[in-house]
Amino acid sequence: MRDFRAMNCVKLRFHLILFSVALLIALPTLRSQSSPRVNGERVMEHVAAMAAIGKDPGGGYSRVAYTEADRQGREYVIGLMRAAGLTVSIDAAGNISGRRAGSEPRLPSLVIGSHVDSVPQGGNYDGIVGSLGAIEVAQILAEGHLALRHPLEVLIFQNEEGGLQGSRAISGELREEDLNQATRSGKTLREGIAFIGGDPARLAAVRRKSADIFAYLELHIEQGGTLAADKIDIGVVEGIVGNHRWDVTIEGVANHAGTTPMNQRHDALLAAARFIEAVNRVVTSVPGRQVGTVGRIQAIPGAYNVVPGRVMLGLDVRDFDESRIDMLFGRIRDEAEQIGQASGTKFSFQQIVSDRPALSDPRLRQLIADSAKQLNLATKVLPSGATHDAQSMSRLAPSGMIFIPSIGGISHAPEEFSRPPDIVNGANVLLRTVLQLDSQNW
Amino acid sequence: MRDFRAMNCVKLRFHLILFSVALLIALPTLRSQSSPRVNGERVMEHVAAMAAIGKDPGGGYSRVAYTEADRQGREYVIGLMRAAGLTVSIDAAGNISGRRAGSEPRLPSLVIGSHVDSVPQGGNYDGIVGSLGAIEVAQILAEGHLALRHPLEVLIFQNEEGGLQGSRAISGELREEDLNQATRSGKTLREGIAFIGGDPARLAAVRRKSADIFAYLELHIEQGGTLAADKIDIGVVEGIVGNHRWDVTIEGVANHAGTTPMNQRHDALLAAARFIEAVNRVVTSVPGRQVGTVGRIQAIPGAYNVVPGRVMLGLDVRDFDESRIDMLFGRIRDEAEQIGQASGTKFSFQQIVSDRPALSDPRLRQLIADSAKQLNLATKVLPSGATHDAQSMSRLAPSGMIFIPSIGGISHAPEEFSRPPDIVNGANVLLRTVLQLDSQNW
Repeated sequence: MRDFRAMNCVKLRFHLILFSVALLIALPTLRSQSSPRVNGERVMEHVAAMAAIGKDPGGGYSRVAYTEADRQGREYVIGLMRAAGLTVSIDAAGNISGRRAGSEPRLPSLVIGSHVDSVPQGGNYDGIVGSLGAIEVAQILAEGHLALRHPLEVLIFQNEEGGLQGSRAISGELREEDLNQATRSGKTLREGIAFIGGDPARLAAVRRKSADIFAYLELHIEQGGTLAADKIDIGVVEGIVGNHRWDVTIEGVANHAGTTPMNQRHDALLAAARFIEAVNRVVTSVPGRQVGTVGRIQAIPGAYNVVPGRVMLGLDVRDFDESRIDMLFGRIRDEAEQIGQASGTKFSFQQIVSDRPALSDPRLRQLIADSAKQLNLATKVLPSGATHDAQSMSRLAPSGMIFIPSIGGISHAPEEFSRPPDIVNGANVLLRTVLQLDSQNW
Repeated sequence: MRDFRAMNCVKLRFHLILFSVALLIALPTLRSQSSPRVNGERVMEHVAAMAAIGKDPGGGYSRVAYTEADRQGREYVIGLMRAAGLTVSIDAAGNISGRRAGSEPRLPSLVIGSHVDSVPQGGNYDGIVGSLGAIEVAQILAEGHLALRHPLEVLIFQNEEGGLQGSRAISGELREEDLNQATRSGKTLREGIAFIGGDPARLAAVRRKSADIFAYLELHIEQGGTLAADKIDIGVVEGIVGNHRWDVTIEGVANHAGTTPMNQRHDALLAAARFIEAVNRVVTSVPGRQVGTVGRIQAIPGAYNVVPGRVMLGLDVRDFDESRIDMLFGRIRDEAEQIGQASGTKFSFQQIVSDRPALSDPRLRQLIADSAKQLNLATKVLPSGATHDAQSMSRLAPSGMIFIPSIGGISHAPEEFSRPPDIVNGANVLLRTVLQLDSQNW
């Protein structure tokens, strides 16, 4: 009996060792197969629900920051955040924050998020996919009772489209004097922040410390056509271009369109036309990925029968290299000087945005690429031509962005579209990257 | 006694004949010296009172038709018309009519007038000088108990600046379907007419018969620089140029200003800029006095960070020769076609105004010139580059216009200015021409 028992005991030990070895070998696979996925149907339901808010009769969606539609969009995501078990608060700049405790509460926060405001007559994907994707991640963690080591924070930044105002408050780049700026809503920035429940008098309190943020991750539509054209599922963003903006004013002389001979005019709109043409010529005169745009224009007084006396327009120039932006702007200003002299008009420039280029963190890029690979998704490293709140967050913490394809590369327009499978893929990559990031000890 | 009486009687007869001859010789001079003049101080007080209405915070005056400021301006002149003893009524198109009976009531009316609406941020002289001048003429006739043979009518036309709408209703050129047009006030033409007390349902009743109007006379500022530059007091208008207007729509593709490469854009505003430049090039490519203007523009969606997907602009072309307008527009449309093809945008044109050229009546021109001469004022015959209600009225009756100098030729702008002595001269020429016209038996 003893021998038998001894032999059995040896066998048992052997089997136990075998089992353990097998378990160790199989574990990563098991872990991968059982790793959580987002609820794709729910994500798309939320996208559809958002599409009911701020529909513009002229086409597309107008959830311009500080308008009633913006307020409604914010209300909607606040409801989703609460349903996902997040503790919701509005900071003094009007950003919406939803927090979930971590198992190691002294660790800095892992922050994910995006924005829900839009350009006038924009689409339903820019900002929305990332916001709803981040909330879905929190929902999945809550449903699975999955504890992260780090506290998780979902941040819905306010007024991204009007110059990253919410995230710039968090990074400390939004200054007190900026609050008097006019915004597209008709309200000043100060009035707009108050309108959405912020407290502009306490702007300084919004600024975060680097030590409090472990990393920032944002899911977003590409807004360019690269991923869709190349049939790539996921874009790993290498960085965000710098973006400088100016308000340009052209002063001519308003006069009667019937009685003022052509050679006696100081037509501010004709000078503006030559300027718009010059911007295009200068920006395309050198090789590279730089872009320059005049997107808005106002002629005053703006009547059929009056030679315009004043024109205001917006100039937007972007590149990865800030010195190249400076060089292009210098040439544009020289052309404006010549146009002004030739037409008897006067150009003046006021810079209103100077967002520096921002590189994403290489470790985060790797984690995003690994997560996509584990989900059998094709990836490509690419720059972001658009500005994003990740730009502000990168001043504080390692930041990274996950892009999904934009069909036809169209964005900021009613035709903006991303396919549901791509949206769900993006949310799954975000979820997996969050889980992997949580185990890092940077 | 008899002889003495007889001699005295012969002497008396002789003296009577002498006196009569002297009287006949002196009469024209006496008549000239005693002929009525306007009260210049009062005219300028009325001009100053009008300047209190519709002051635009952005500069100049905005009494745009169908706005509250327009309504206030109309109220003010109605008060003046009543004070001048005129019987005031509003016709179904919203024109203000003030009538004074003639001594031969079966004669057709002698009509004088102008308008009190303005362009946005325009001046206080365009339309105002002629309206207040016409009312002053009526006031002087009332104060002097001067009976005209013809009934006198002072007409203040509504919405001159928005396309001669009031006078076109009177000439029968305003059609029922035009009433749905949008106007600068935000109201449709139909709503605007109702707003100022008209009855758009009764538009047809506004049309006048030629037989009811003896002649139409209008005093106006030149709005060009000829009279002021040549130091001429009074312009005798030979005619009004034809004026064609189009709404031009340019369809491109709205897209993100950061992510859309320069060579993949269909930028509607860049195409619009090339179009504005082309309009200027075409219009100045042939000799002549023709003018072409793009005075208003709207880019949609109109954000710094969006490549514009649609642009709407207004094109205005004027010349004395309508076939030349057609020729110029043909070339402009060809250029638009080429710009559209090169930039992947689509131009469309909708004609909204086609005012035919109108010559003034040569007999009226002579009466105006004679009246000015009797007042020792220098005159010059000149065309009108601007459209005027006289254009519509010339379809019905002999019409004429009296111009006074515009300093610097500036009009439709806050800097629009005419000197008080010139305004008073103009009103006096109007008064004298009315008196001389009344004795004509055309």
